[in-house]
Amino acid sequence: MTPSQDRYNNALGIRSVLSTESLSADQVRKILDTAFFFKKNRRSKSFKNTVEGKTIVLFFFEASTRTRVSFELAAKRLGATTVFLGNEGSSAGKGETLYDTARTLQAMEPDVIVLRHPSAGSPNFLNQVLHVPVINAGDGFHEHPTQALLDAMTIEEFKGGIRGQKVLIVGDIAHSRVARSNIYLLKTMGAEVSVCGPPTLLPPRVENMGVKVFYDLDKAVKDQDVIILLRIQFERFEAGQTPSRGEYLRFWGMTSRVADLCKPEVLVMHPGPMNRGVELSTEVADGPRSVILNQVSNGVDVRMAVLHLLTGGEVLGGGQPK
Amino acid sequence: MTPSQDRYNNALGIRSVLSTESLSADQVRKILDTAFFFKKNRRSKSFKNTVEGKTIVLFFFEASTRTRVSFELAAKRLGATTVFLGNEGSSAGKGETLYDTARTLQAMEPDVIVLRHPSAGSPNFLNQVLHVPVINAGDGFHEHPTQALLDAMTIEEFKGGIRGQKVLIVGDIAHSRVARSNIYLLKTMGAEVSVCGPPTLLPPRVENMGVKVFYDLDKAVKDQDVIILLRIQFERFEAGQTPSRGEYLRFWGMTSRVADLCKPEVLVMHPGPMNRGVELSTEVADGPRSVILNQVSNGVDVRMAVLHLLTGGEVLGGGQPK
Amino acid sequence: MTPSQDRYNNALGIRSVLSTESLSADQVRKILDTAFFFKKNRRSKSFKNTVEGKTIVLFFFEASTRTRVSFELAAKRLGATTVFLGNEGSSAGKGETLYDTARTLQAMEPDVIVLRHPSAGSPNFLNQVLHVPVINAGDGFHEHPTQALLDAMTIEEFKGGIRGQKVLIVGDIAHSRVARSNIYLLKTMGAEVSVCGPPTLLPPRVENMGVKVFYDLDKAVKDQDVIILLRIQFERFEAGQTPSRGEYLRFWGMTSRVADLCKPEVLVMHPGPMNRGVELSTEVADGPRSVILNQVSNGVDVRMAVLHLLTGGEVLGGGQPK
Repeated sequence: MTPSQDRYNNALGIRSVLSTESLSADQVRKILDTAFFFKKNRRSKSFKNTVEGKTIVLFFFEASTRTRVSFELAAKRLGATTVFLGNEGSSAGKGETLYDTARTLQAMEPDVIVLRHPSAGSPNFLNQVLHVPVINAGDGFHEHPTQALLDAMTIEEFKGGIRGQKVLIVGDIAHSRVARSNIYLLKTMGAEVSVCGPPTLLPPRVENMGVKVFYDLDKAVKDQDVIILLRIQFERFEAGQTPSRGEYLRFWGMTSRVADLCKPEVLVMHPGPMNRGVELSTEVADGPRSVILNQVSNGVDVRMAVLHLLTGGEVLGGGQPK
Repeated sequence: MTPSQDRYNNALGIRSVLSTESLSADQVRKILDTAFFFKKNRRSKSFKNTVEGKTIVLFFFEASTRTRVSFELAAKRLGATTVFLGNEGSSAGKGETLYDTARTLQAMEPDVIVLRHPSAGSPNFLNQVLHVPVINAGDGFHEHPTQALLDAMTIEEFKGGIRGQKVLIVGDIAHSRVARSNIYLLKTMGAEVSVCGPPTLLPPRVENMGVKVFYDLDKAVKDQDVIILLRIQFERFEAGQTPSRGEYLRFWGMTSRVADLCKPEVLVMHPGPMNRGVELSTEVADGPRSVILNQVSNGVDVRMAVLHLLTGGEVLGGGQPK
Repeated sequence: MTPSQDRYNNALGIRSVLSTESLSADQVRKILDTAFFFKKNRRSKSFKNTVEGKTIVLFFFEASTRTRVSFELAAKRLGATTVFLGNEGSSAGKGETLYDTARTLQAMEPDVIVLRHPSAGSPNFLNQVLHVPVINAGDGFHEHPTQALLDAMTIEEFKGGIRGQKVLIVGDIAHSRVARSNIYLLKTMGAEVSVCGPPTLLPPRVENMGVKVFYDLDKAVKDQDVIILLRIQFERFEAGQTPSRGEYLRFWGMTSRVADLCKPEVLVMHPGPMNRGVELSTEVADGPRSVILNQVSNGVDVRMAVLHLLTGGEVLGGGQPK
């Protein structure tokens, strides 16, 4: 699914960020260090800005609020201009292939293309046929690497590091690009990853990804340092394929009752948008363990870091974790 | 509906502009003075620009051309970047609450949020749960304060002041946020306000708002200095609830015949988009009494002023009216 | 259709670019010279930039990817800000006339309006009622002048000039604004233009436009220096009105077999988006004769040139063709 990438002349040694499966611990470290630098130095001018004046194309074949706005803010905060291209009213609607649309865009000489697309592998395809950097902003059920990077940043921010952390991912693992990207990245960085969810929503042979599997949330949450709740996308399922909203909350939702079974210092995370009363109760969503809004905030920093490093910027910050 | 706002450390003493009901004459004066300064000094660099480099989120849950473009131009003219967020393809479409969408946006650290929303009171709600400035760009049938500010600016521009001016608002008063915002602001600034429209489209006990009520347009227009025509939104009504387009023009429309009953120097205003041949005839729309395009132009200046003052800018211009 | 334009105080002597029918050879020369300058000096600061800081309104009543993005990039590359206005959610959807929408926009004082509209002649109408420069980005079946300018630029880039070049336009000539704009411009610049297509898709008396007509592609392509393939828009036709996709390729499509009948150095052009396997085969689309992506790239330069010259910029480059 993720072919090895050519060596490339920037601090990451790669032209594109397509997946976390293909990122080494060293590459993740560089991205997180740079992201923490941007977080602490929001308006700093004390670094060589390689993104300023560049043109970033945001090519979103699927609806998105937070990811699109997050990339747009990241680009603009570094002084780039953005051009948005959605599915509506685009040439794709006139039957043009992704190949032609992408090559057409490239002919206009943008500096980076950020792609969200319903088809798994489309960012990899773009990366093969283009010569500009491509950032995967979510491709089908495959990967969403900047989401996993911002999750890792949030864990590091609150836990001081990722190695040895026990992380549980709860929900529809089978259809979640967030889960896949998190599993790859967290394992690369030395975390112990478990998953828990309705058996029908766990991928076959998920153990082969190196994760522990739980079918009982009450047992799963014990001893975890971090719990990542996935959004359940009821709109994807036919009636009867999933539990109802109320049942989901009762069996797989993070309620105060379940939270009381956790370590007191557990982090509760969610990629958003949340279904309150489904994946988690309002008490937990707004409670002291929730770092959901910190994830959003870190998302801008992580995307600034990725844009900066892919356009030739130096690794910033670093030295000690956090 | 509009709770008192906390004192805030800027020239207006408030964090957000949510309504004209809550604006004092002094606050309106500061906004209009600053707006006139921007109008006269379009490309001036002779003031401390507090908006430059800031990020303004335009969060429009309802379709809009002129208000959205006007805010966008106002922000960009002052050197801010804007991020647009519509209802289409947003997380709201995925069932996210306004509370969560707004807190998510805030976590990305924009500097100002401009909100248009079909629910009355939603900007007030946002203002309570967020700590960034919120500007109400129209909320349901409640208020549209920057529209009333640009109307006031236009009256002042052509009449030299607002105090003592006789202003008539014609049309669907009951469902018009423009009417409500104008009534509050004009009365605060000392104008004498009347309303006129089909009895079914006047709010119950409208006299309690301190306005005079007319049911006959011919009588209403006499002695008025300013006539504000409201857009009639036929799409909101079922067949039979309102007069037909032709009937509306005949009974409530501003035709040349009605214009001849007015003072010669009366101002004809309309917030747009106009229904030509409904609220007014083409002769009046394009005639010498019409200041409809001046309203549009002043709208950009008023929004520049509000952005400037809410972000900590000093009151500009002033001293004498206009 | 295209009234003579008033003299205007800039290097082109015209306020707006509405059609190629109304452009002189001298005006085209100035635009192409300036476009080649921008192509060679992408990031040059060595000229007086008249577009920087200006506001360009992109007013697109029809869906478009490449033209909208191309204008947006052209404007942003020169440091302008752009404001997009589509048909969705605009006042036009509320019944406002083009006249009122345009005058409203103008009241907000943009510097240039780029208009795409389904009605032939609407840019001319806008030009008459407004006083800001208008650029036609495609109006119904009428014209698409910047497309013809970028096509001419591409021919000049690869052939060293336009005069005397034999250019064949293939496809649905009757409904193509690209064909019309190309015929006018190429003839003005001294090319020999022919057309070829299904008889039902050729305009009546097309010979009166000064072009040679072919009904047999095999015969038409011989001795041509340039072949411009038009997009066939099946969605416009009812079943039975046009050949099927396969039949179209067989009779009117540019396949390897047809390409072998051409001069070896023939240029194959297409305005995009392409229907692979309809107007041309994939071998030809991606083959050595295809300059389709060069057209896209030149499109940004041509639009930069037009924006530059209409806003008062000097003619850049020039002296010798290319």
